[in-house]
Amino acid sequence: MVFSHTEGGKMQSDWTVSDSDGTPFTPLVVLELAHDANAEAVQWLLSRIRDKQQDGGSELLVEQLLAGGPDGEKGNPNVLLVGSSLRRLLDGAEDVGLFKEFNDGSMRGFTYSNRDNFKDFQEDGDGFLSVAECQYIIKHELDTLRARDEANVPGYPKAKLYPGKSIIRRLQSKSILLQVFPLHDKEELKRLSFSWYKKVRLSFQPLDVIRHYFGEGLALYFGFLEYFTLAMVPMALIGIPYYLWDWEDYDKYVLFAVFNLVWSTVFLEVWKRTSASLAYGWGTLSRQKAFEEPRAGFHGVLGFNPVTGREEPIYPNSRRQLRIYLVSVPFVVLCLYLSFCIMMVYFDMETWCLALYELEPNFWTGVLLFVPSIIYAVIIEVLNLLYRYAAEFLTDWENYRLESSYQNHLVLKVLVFNFFNCFASLFYIAFVMQDMVLLRQSLATLLITSQILNQIMEAFLPYWLQRRRNKKAHRRLQKVAKKEQELPLPQQVLLESDMSTYLGTFDDYLEQFLLFGYVSLFSCVYPLAAVLVVLNNITEVYSDAFKMCCVFKRPFADPASNIGVWQLAFETMSVIAVVTNCALIGLSPQVKAYFPESDTQLILLVVCVEHILLASKFILAFVIPDVPKPIQIQLARLEFESLEALKKKKILETSSTSDK
Amino acid sequence: MVFSHTEGGKMQSDWTVSDSDGTPFTPLVVLELAHDANAEAVQWLLSRIRDKQQDGGSELLVEQLLAGGPDGEKGNPNVLLVGSSLRRLLDGAEDVGLFKEFNDGSMRGFTYSNRDNFKDFQEDGDGFLSVAECQYIIKHELDTLRARDEANVPGYPKAKLYPGKSIIRRLQSKSILLQVFPLHDKEELKRLSFSWYKKVRLSFQPLDVIRHYFGEGLALYFGFLEYFTLAMVPMALIGIPYYLWDWEDYDKYVLFAVFNLVWSTVFLEVWKRTSASLAYGWGTLSRQKAFEEPRAGFHGVLGFNPVTGREEPIYPNSRRQLRIYLVSVPFVVLCLYLSFCIMMVYFDMETWCLALYELEPNFWTGVLLFVPSIIYAVIIEVLNLLYRYAAEFLTDWENYRLESSYQNHLVLKVLVFNFFNCFASLFYIAFVMQDMVLLRQSLATLLITSQILNQIMEAFLPYWLQRRRNKKAHRRLQKVAKKEQELPLPQQVLLESDMSTYLGTFDDYLEQFLLFGYVSLFSCVYPLAAVLVVLNNITEVYSDAFKMCCVFKRPFADPASNIGVWQLAFETMSVIAVVTNCALIGLSPQVKAYFPESDTQLILLVVCVEHILLASKFILAFVIPDVPKPIQIQLARLEFESLEALKKKKILETSSTSDK
Repeated sequence: MVFSHTEGGKMQSDWTVSDSDGTPFTPLVVLELAHDANAEAVQWLLSRIRDKQQDGGSELLVEQLLAGGPDGEKGNPNVLLVGSSLRRLLDGAEDVGLFKEFNDGSMRGFTYSNRDNFKDFQEDGDGFLSVAECQYIIKHELDTLRARDEANVPGYPKAKLYPGKSIIRRLQSKSILLQVFPLHDKEELKRLSFSWYKKVRLSFQPLDVIRHYFGEGLALYFGFLEYFTLAMVPMALIGIPYYLWDWEDYDKYVLFAVFNLVWSTVFLEVWKRTSASLAYGWGTLSRQKAFEEPRAGFHGVLGFNPVTGREEPIYPNSRRQLRIYLVSVPFVVLCLYLSFCIMMVYFDMETWCLALYELEPNFWTGVLLFVPSIIYAVIIEVLNLLYRYAAEFLTDWENYRLESSYQNHLVLKVLVFNFFNCFASLFYIAFVMQDMVLLRQSLATLLITSQILNQIMEAFLPYWLQRRRNKKAHRRLQKVAKKEQELPLPQQVLLESDMSTYLGTFDDYLEQFLLFGYVSLFSCVYPLAAVLVVLNNITEVYSDAFKMCCVFKRPFADPASNIGVWQLAFETMSVIAVVTNCALIGLSPQVKAYFPESDTQLILLVVCVEHILLASKFILAFVIPDVPKPIQIQLARLEFESLEALKKKKILETSSTSDK
Repeated sequence: MVFSHTEGGKMQSDWTVSDSDGTPFTPLVVLELAHDANAEAVQWLLSRIRDKQQDGGSELLVEQLLAGGPDGEKGNPNVLLVGSSLRRLLDGAEDVGLFKEFNDGSMRGFTYSNRDNFKDFQEDGDGFLSVAECQYIIKHELDTLRARDEANVPGYPKAKLYPGKSIIRRLQSKSILLQVFPLHDKEELKRLSFSWYKKVRLSFQPLDVIRHYFGEGLALYFGFLEYFTLAMVPMALIGIPYYLWDWEDYDKYVLFAVFNLVWSTVFLEVWKRTSASLAYGWGTLSRQKAFEEPRAGFHGVLGFNPVTGREEPIYPNSRRQLRIYLVSVPFVVLCLYLSFCIMMVYFDMETWCLALYELEPNFWTGVLLFVPSIIYAVIIEVLNLLYRYAAEFLTDWENYRLESSYQNHLVLKVLVFNFFNCFASLFYIAFVMQDMVLLRQSLATLLITSQILNQIMEAFLPYWLQRRRNKKAHRRLQKVAKKEQELPLPQQVLLESDMSTYLGTFDDYLEQFLLFGYVSLFSCVYPLAAVLVVLNNITEVYSDAFKMCCVFKRPFADPASNIGVWQLAFETMSVIAVVTNCALIGLSPQVKAYFPESDTQLILLVVCVEHILLASKFILAFVIPDVPKPIQIQLARLEFESLEALKKKKILETSSTSDK
């Protein structure tokens, strides 16, 4: 038996199965093959997974799940449970370059030979790796399980293989393998959810526990969410009096805007440092990225990869460029135009309602005034959703070799459209119509509506679906009276395989990005936006935590060391915010009143201030170091030590050879 | 005998001396100690340099130069000539992490054990390393020669030492060691200078030969100089017709300015790629920086370095900050104010001369019109020079631990002042006085005067001084009739030790930076500036090449992989140029004529265009990859191979341990 909880030390005793040669193991990862998968292929896959590493196998433990429910109902016979021996996992930890805390408190790359110098390594190393890390290692080992001399998957003549091709990727691209997912750990999950969201009290999130269970990528998202919410609090506090006493004094608005701009620069820079500290403590900061495999869906003519020298599909970049510029770009422009047309319809509706209200001002027409904004907000959300699918389809079709390029192009497409779709109407109202009252009203309606819709779409809808599934599973068992009682392993696996898949932090970051836009772009007109965002994010923490624990399949850990492209996106937004806020202040009648003779002076002044603010933003970002000093020292020390060790080794070698 | 020229294969036969145990060697580096240096200290230094590496020595070959001229004149007895055995140099190449071309055409870190797989390694490796590389290796070995248990330098109770302190640095800081310099190689130098500047024909500079003789840092400077000059040619060609036909048409000026802005962005980005290609071919791109030693002049209380754990002087950062903010910053501000006052005096002179000319317009008062600008230009150059000394003194006093921090703070101080000093008057004329005719005249005078002064200061003055010294040395020998005949070794060493020291590429880059400012900041007013810069730089190539070969001591090679902080400086200048050019165009009467009713629309349009240009600059810089694709592939391949090798090794180890 291999696993214990690192905290409780309690074995997952009723969750073990046995390998073909009788070794009992804890199942960690599930491979769900197609219901009608060829038996020959399944056997071949099983043996390849079990094969020794020298023979090109994964050397993991694997077993087919006993099919069918207790009521004789037939389940999928091709569900494989994968586990591993402890020794194999420790070797795997070395393969993936895991960083762990050393005896002296620094973080170092784990090596098996040096295992006794790591802080939490006791006896045979049981409990040294978290379950999430073990699952990540198993996933990595499965992903790098390569074809040897097989020309195709046994039983599937069309599923071509060539030496070095990742078997799992090919099975996925041919839909023989439906999904790979790690299993939840009921005990640990219960403890996590209790310390995370099941108690209502003022405290930070248990980021280390989250990281322990879900991995670094998700923990960084929740860290960012918390940090971002806290960073909004000062803005919110300053914003409240503006709302309460209806301050229309633009001196104060200028102050508020300047504070916001400086604040947003500082907090984004400080976040970089915070995330570096977190990532250092989690060992992902200095961890080298493993060599990236081609995506499962990538296809092309067989050729030689110039980097690895391996045979692998090649897709010419020129053809990808053609697809981008001849199809994707026009499509995005078309979508933007469509969004623009809808915006114009919204303005027509707005005018129509206003005319109605002026004709007959009563309660109902007063309510009617808000209706166009609400409808428009709903349409925006629907468009964003539809566009999202289209963007995924297009980016897939552009056929990127690497997951990272795929993600970058997807993010770019989605960001451009969402930015335009959400904020175009506000820009139009602010700078073309120059109607500050409508701007405020429209901003408020858009913000509130999108928050409500998001919460429903993100948490309540999936929860409701999941509850139905859950109930069905329990009802199927029939013998259980109490809902809380644990399901036996096969039912638990089937239940989890039916849960929705968490598609990564993309949508969560996107939501925060848009909220940041609502707060910062027009902050001097609607200081209350920060208050709304803070309130939203407090519930967001709970609903996101809840959805991760109860609604979705457990995701694989993602060893992220920062929030990636989102840092750049937030920074770009804060640069745009400088421009919009300066322009808004320049447009305000109160400021204009200071320059009664000519607009020229006013505009020149605003432009000057804007340039100074932008320049100081860049200088500030340049001056604040991205990594805190203590961590810089730690990293430098490790580098120095490895250099010294190398030097000593070399001198010894030289002297021994010269002595001979 | 150790050396041959890699190209000619000819031995430097008449340049060998013998070590104390009789091994003959080619002297490569000279250590000049003080004339009255304590004999005990000299003997100690000699023995420490000769000691074996296991005993903490450098294991180099060293001998005292025989003192005195042939006429019985007494020379400095404490001049040490340092050389090395071939094997020691090859080990040293591994120590400094030299990258060399591998058999398969890629660049890899040299290791002695793998020596036969490197392309140019033949037999015992004679000629594998260039002389410049050997000298760099010797310098590195001398710099890392560390004190053992000596409490002080023998014979100098005040020159304290502690274990791990660099001996050479201590001797330098106590002025016992006056200078360390590499020797010129007359043969190779003659060939280099012939292919470089002694023939007048249209060709690129022999960058590889320059790098071979002077190292990567200087070769990159000359590469940049050439690239920058070529990049100016299109601007110059477009600028000529404006001058010839006196186009005052602002439509055309707008076109010219927009072309300039796009062009300057593109060429700076392309330079990054070019320099990456050069650095890759020279093996410095992926070479890891060695751990930086403290500067020779750095002092502080003995403490423990948090990175190395070694005992070493510690100087608290807070005290450095105090010095910066309480002394350096006020001083710089004062200098800026002084420069401003001088500028105002210049304007008074200008007005006075103009009044005189209008009173009595004849040839002499016409000439007088140019006098203030010329005087002002000379004063600017003098101020820059004086400020340079002050900045060096201050930065030294701020007591930085690392040479790189010292350089960064020096560059920052000098750049801010030089920028203000050179361009303040032009900004004042352009935006406060709004006198475009004066701007053009002033720009031309400043540019031409500074070019002439620079050429004199940089090349002709040092050349004249050197000629005098050269003649004296030859006259001292008396027996030579032909000036060109070679001096014997001791005289050659003494002659070179008297030559001026080349202080690095700082001043050369600074000059190009200011020229770039003259061209780009006000390009739409004076298109001829580019022509002047191109003409200047063509002579600059020759005078810089000449001064490196004949005027200065040979400098140590500097394994640079890019032009460092200057890339940022040039990019910042091109951003500022966008702002000034947009403003200039907005100010022009022709453009104003398009918006007769109100200035507001004009300004808004100009601001919009400026923002779009700035945004596209940033996007362009982001989109163009910094390293060309083929080199990216090469680098990725090396990384992949080392990962694979590591993995294979691990699998073998694992299987062998599990077999046991």
